[in-house]
Amino acid sequence: MENFIWYNPTKMYFGKGELNKLHDELKNYQKVLLVYGGGSIKSSGLYNQIIEILKTENKFYLELYGVEPNPKLKKVREGIKLVTKNNIDLLLAVGGGSTIDTAKAIAVGAISKHDILDLLLNKYQPEKGLAIGTILTLSATGSEMNPRCVISDSDNDLKLGLGNWNTDATFPNFSICDPSYTITVPKNQTINGIVDIISHVLEQYFHRNENSILGDKISESLIKIMIETGPRLIKDLDNYSLRETMMICGAMAWNGMIRGLSNNGDWSCHAMEHALSAVYDIPHGEGLAIITPIWMEYCARIDPSKFVNFATNIFNVNTENKTELEVALEGIENYKNFLYELGAPTSMKHYQIDTYDIDQLVEKAILGRETIGKYISLRSEDVKTILNKVF
Amino acid sequence: MENFIWYNPTKMYFGKGELNKLHDELKNYQKVLLVYGGGSIKSSGLYNQIIEILKTENKFYLELYGVEPNPKLKKVREGIKLVTKNNIDLLLAVGGGSTIDTAKAIAVGAISKHDILDLLLNKYQPEKGLAIGTILTLSATGSEMNPRCVISDSDNDLKLGLGNWNTDATFPNFSICDPSYTITVPKNQTINGIVDIISHVLEQYFHRNENSILGDKISESLIKIMIETGPRLIKDLDNYSLRETMMICGAMAWNGMIRGLSNNGDWSCHAMEHALSAVYDIPHGEGLAIITPIWMEYCARIDPSKFVNFATNIFNVNTENKTELEVALEGIENYKNFLYELGAPTSMKHYQIDTYDIDQLVEKAILGRETIGKYISLRSEDVKTILNKVF
Repeated sequence: MENFIWYNPTKMYFGKGELNKLHDELKNYQKVLLVYGGGSIKSSGLYNQIIEILKTENKFYLELYGVEPNPKLKKVREGIKLVTKNNIDLLLAVGGGSTIDTAKAIAVGAISKHDILDLLLNKYQPEKGLAIGTILTLSATGSEMNPRCVISDSDNDLKLGLGNWNTDATFPNFSICDPSYTITVPKNQTINGIVDIISHVLEQYFHRNENSILGDKISESLIKIMIETGPRLIKDLDNYSLRETMMICGAMAWNGMIRGLSNNGDWSCHAMEHALSAVYDIPHGEGLAIITPIWMEYCARIDPSKFVNFATNIFNVNTENKTELEVALEGIENYKNFLYELGAPTSMKHYQIDTYDIDQLVEKAILGRETIGKYISLRSEDVKTILNKVF
Repeated sequence: MENFIWYNPTKMYFGKGELNKLHDELKNYQKVLLVYGGGSIKSSGLYNQIIEILKTENKFYLELYGVEPNPKLKKVREGIKLVTKNNIDLLLAVGGGSTIDTAKAIAVGAISKHDILDLLLNKYQPEKGLAIGTILTLSATGSEMNPRCVISDSDNDLKLGLGNWNTDATFPNFSICDPSYTITVPKNQTINGIVDIISHVLEQYFHRNENSILGDKISESLIKIMIETGPRLIKDLDNYSLRETMMICGAMAWNGMIRGLSNNGDWSCHAMEHALSAVYDIPHGEGLAIITPIWMEYCARIDPSKFVNFATNIFNVNTENKTELEVALEGIENYKNFLYELGAPTSMKHYQIDTYDIDQLVEKAILGRETIGKYISLRSEDVKTILNKVF
């Protein structure tokens, strides 16, 4: 096991009706910026409930709405202005990962002496941030319980990330996770969330550490549970119990725990997907569904060992009279079948995209690094081969 | 799943050489009370290393030593006096659960307007505590990453606990967990630690919640890993990798995670063991090894259902042509065999104790409650039957 720091100061309120805990949490703050996306929290009634609580607790509040999927730097800048002008002391994000990520970027951008773009380019590390609260309405990114945020700089077609796991600058101070709010999430977004959750675990599962037995077992449990319950949820979208499972798995998948137990995960699928969604603005989960099996097949041929664990421990692939590679490929085939049955896209053809600038995509995936990926180090030629196969 | 709050603000530094992080952590404090047990940290050289760091960082420090297993209220009171008289702002516990628990009780007792005994009797809840740092030298209780502490009131032969999971009053602010420091832990204490870790998971595994699939899978992983690696460690005490596994499992077993995912665990074995060790001052892990299989057999006959999961998922017990109870009892037999092979005691006869006051023990286990235990509610008659079997 490699040395690691494990730190997660977010207080999570999980379960039906936990919104009432907002009353207590608000006592620590005076001025709130409510951050949200479109009208779904209005039609569901959640918006009114939150406003009611803000009024009951006599809080000054402003609103920043219109956060889009693949959230944009422009919206972050808009938020920073509002916050500094009005001395906001709590960012209250209501939504999924995009909304929460926007709030995080505002939380550090508003009090840093550096420009938010320089923080996103990792020229400087944010050490402090304003307080962040989240009310989760979409299970996917785990942003409700981690310090990471991903923001799209549309001017340069780049997806950029920030967030330090060892300081509390961008961890939400509290997150209210009521699975009821996710019941109305449409089918395609639910599929994308399932893929995103599994992908977070896969990125951490494919590592090169010694003695990561506990991390691996927890990873395998998370993947198996999502593979077993995901397709049932897609056929039964308003099943509370399955929404509950998805919500807790989403938080656990990427809250620092597996990251600590089996650190140095691969993360090259995320790097390549960020290039795709930066250029084509496709949903992150769909990009991951397209790229992951291709990455798997490419890497299994270089070193099938961990893919054998994946095949046997997740899909119970029988190993008798098979080579390691055959077992590995059978596991990957199982994962592809799972994605297909779930209804996830399998190629960029899904978007009628057939012309593309491969060198631009490779550059955006690599972002100046010599290689990406920890399980298999991919050079730009490898990334090119993989990305050529997604179209 | 029942509603739960999941909160764990402890920053854990895990791995070889992480003691150097003490330099940074000390920057937040001025006056330190070093809390430890006997001479083991002196003979290992750890004491000198810590003193060196305290001096380098120019900290005022005092020492409170002689903390015993089943730590005593008297020592806590001694610490409270030192802290209040000298304006200590960091309790630095170096040791295992007993030392850390003593530091926690001092941390709240020193700044509460209530007497520490009243806090331990849960007459009042501590809302605030002084900062606590830990340097772990024994894997067992998980106290390095949770808010709980257990203190013995020898005047009344009682073991009392405090610690609120939803405030940061008694969570360590930081914990340095370097498995190297546990290499010299003797065989019997290592056995007790293994039993304690598994017991913490078992207490949480036997619950009555719906949809606890993730919590159960993580619990089963933890138990299986400890059952597989524990006996290997006992035969190879200075194996770093196995010490590492034990240390991380010890923290994960009782840090709030499983508690949240499958809340309302049983905890009646701990209640009964606390009665035994309060009266006879036996090691907690040994008491748990004695009482748990007896509790299991008693409860499996009332409702074998969860014991069937235990038998099949942990020990791969074959269910063919067997009743639920037969499967359950076979699982329990496997657990008894594991404890026996590990070298844990199986009866209070181990201590040559054969006369006992059963009513006194039952009273101390029940502590005024009508029943104990969530998987099976035990009334005092049940507790009496179980406790009679330990002698």
